[in-house]
Parts: sequence; structure tokens; C-alpha cells
Amino acid sequence: MAIYIPDPVVKRLPMYYRYLKETENRGQVYISSAELAQLMGLTASQVRQDVNAFQGEGRQGCGYPVTELKKHIEKLLGICRQQNMIIVGVGNLGRALLRHKEFAERGFTTIGLFDNRTCNNAWNKNLPVRDIAELESFTEKHRVDIAILTLPAVNTQAMAERLYQCGIRAFWNFAPIDVQLPKDAAVVNVHLDESLERLSYRLKHPE
Amino acid sequence: MAIYIPDPVVKRLPMYYRYLKETENRGQVYISSAELAQLMGLTASQVRQDVNAFQGEGRQGCGYPVTELKKHIEKLLGICRQQNMIIVGVGNLGRALLRHKEFAERGFTTIGLFDNRTCNNAWNKNLPVRDIAELESFTEKHRVDIAILTLPAVNTQAMAERLYQCGIRAFWNFAPIDVQLPKDAAVVNVHLDESLERLSYRLKHPE
Repeated sequence: MAIYIPDPVVKRLPMYYRYLKETENRGQVYISSAELAQLMGLTASQVRQDVNAFQGEGRQGCGYPVTELKKHIEKLLGICRQQNMIIVGVGNLGRALLRHKEFAERGFTTIGLFDNRTCNNAWNKNLPVRDIAELESFTEKHRVDIAILTLPAVNTQAMAERLYQCGIRAFWNFAPIDVQLPKDAAVVNVHLDESLERLSYRLKHPE
Repeated sequence: MAIYIPDPVVKRLPMYYRYLKETENRGQVYISSAELAQLMGLTASQVRQDVNAFQGEGRQGCGYPVTELKKHIEKLLGICRQQNMIIVGVGNLGRALLRHKEFAERGFTTIGLFDNRTCNNAWNKNLPVRDIAELESFTEKHRVDIAILTLPAVNTQAMAERLYQCGIRAFWNFAPIDVQLPKDAAVVNVHLDESLERLSYRLKHPE
């Protein structure tokens, strides 16, 4: 997989995936760049550029074969295989993510929950909340692909480093800081406050 | 406020805001475009372009005055005034957002919680969960700037339309659909599954 896809296109890949899936579910076999552009809120020429960048194939006069293009993106995103996640920090946000059905549908499976407090486990009998002290022994026994960080900001960077030491290389961080790790780690920081501020901007400055 | 700021710059504004605030907290009075660029992960020339676009002012040889630039962005983002929010759908995610301290620090205050189930209110005595039937009477009595939608996808679009009818013009949606409303409504859709897929891509394709 030596192709280089520019970051703005990578960011759009999941959206392409979603719209192609919806199109497939409607039973549509081909989709034109113009139609895909309308769904995506882009121009047709931009869509053709994007698809070129991630090397999807279309047919002159037919458009893109929906299922084929969807599968191509699925493979690029790595969502055709099972990926094991652990959630570190089991507050409301951690629990909400645990129960988010869409993740499991895409092969993302939570296999462990960790917290540093003694938790009442009654709410989730299938997957007990483990003491963070068990982290090292757990990651020795189980393959963990992704760590979800839903703990207070002040503890997040140190925890990310500890998880990195355990061999984990993908981090989905919800604390309002940018987690810094060596270059071979993939980090996506979800800054909810920035998303809310963007909404506030749009409310104040209607198009 | 008739200036037009391109969307990619709008998306970066909250990040500029965050870094300027951190810089201010360290007691630094001026910041160069090069230094700001390093924090933002951009080039210095890109930073200068961005600041031009949102009409921030710098001084030749000094750089940007940190507090002034921060306040300018604060004003653009509309986070210097109080904004009232309601949360519709009080599951784990709704509760997590209610307890997110950073929102209140930026003037975003949750004044109402709504759900269609009879809820156990013991967990939050200050702000009772109201029956969704009370929505219209509540919005007549209180100014609501922003509605947070944390309900099942299947109910989200209809609820957004109902809230729009109540006069609300800003929507922060967490269901995995794109809420469609008339053009005078501001909508930010947070697609958590797409964020996770982007992480999966980066894990599979290290830089």
C-alpha cells in the first residue's frame, strides 16, 4: 500500500464510505461523480480528483460501481478486519462510546475497560471494569489495536505514554489536549469544545 | 461583521484560540507566525494567510499581540457572551456533555434537559430531565441558542425540525446522520464513527 493520499482526502474517506453504503442499500449499482458530489457537498470535479487520489475506478459513461468503490474504501480504512479497542476512563463518555452500536458494525470491538477507581460493575456484566494496574498483564495476553482515552486531561498524556509502552499504536483521545507520542503512533484528538465553537461561529455568521 | 472567512480557516479558529490562550497563560505577550505555525502544525506563511483572512493584526518585527489576537478570535467565535443550550436525549453521551467543564468555561450553559422517557432524576438534582412534551412551553419561556442532539438516529431529523419550529437555529448533532434544515440554521454534525475510521486509516498507513 504505497499510495499517498493527501490528508483532506483521508478526512473525506469515511464520508464517501457512508454515502456509498447508503447508495448500495438503496440498490443502486452505479453512481456518477455529479451525484456523489451532491451528497458530499463538493463539485463533481473535486470528487473525480478525490477518487483519483485514492485510486478508485470508474467507467466512462457509467460512473463508479458503488459496491466496488465502497469495498476499496473499506480496505483503505482498515474496517474490513476486526480491531480490538480498550477504553481507559469509564465515566459517562467512556460508557457512551462502549454502547455506540455503529463501532461494532464496522469491526471495532471493545475488549477491555480500565479505570483507576473501584467501579460498580453492575451496569455492564459482560465486560468488567478492570483496575488500571492490570493494564500491562492484559495487553500481554490480548492484542489491543486502539486505545480510547476518556480520562481527565491532566492524566491523559502520561496514560498515553504508558499505553504506548504496552505496544499500542493508535489513540483516540477525548481530553481537551493534544496527545504527543512518537511518530509511529497514530493519534486522533477529538476536541469537542472546538466543534461547539465552530457551531457558535456559524450561528453568529450565517452564510 | 461582513468579512468572509473561508471554511478551512473557520475550522482552525478554535485551535488558534486554544494555543493563544495557552501562550497567554504562560505570560508571553507576542507570538511570531513561525512559533504559532509550529504549535498549529502549519507553515508560517499559512499562519500569516489565516490571520489575514480573519483580519487579526500583527506588528512588523514583533509578531502578533497574544491577548489582542485571542480576544479577536473570541469575538469571531461568539464565545465572549453566554449561550444557552438544551440537551435532547439524556443517555450516557448527553450526560457526558452536560458534565464537560470546558463548555461552561467558554460561556456555553446547559439550561434544559429533555428526554421522552421518565427518568430517574436523582443523578442531577440541579437540572431535572423534562418530558419532551414540555419543549414548546420551555422554549417560549427561555432563550435557547443551541440544541444538542444526543438521541437515536431514527428520531433525530424529526426532532431537529421540531426544535427549528421552536425558533432554535443552532444544532450540534451526535447521531450518525446529517441533519438537514433550512439555510438559516447552523448545523454541526459530529460523526464519531468517521473519526474512528480516520484513526484506523492512520494506524494502517503510518506516515
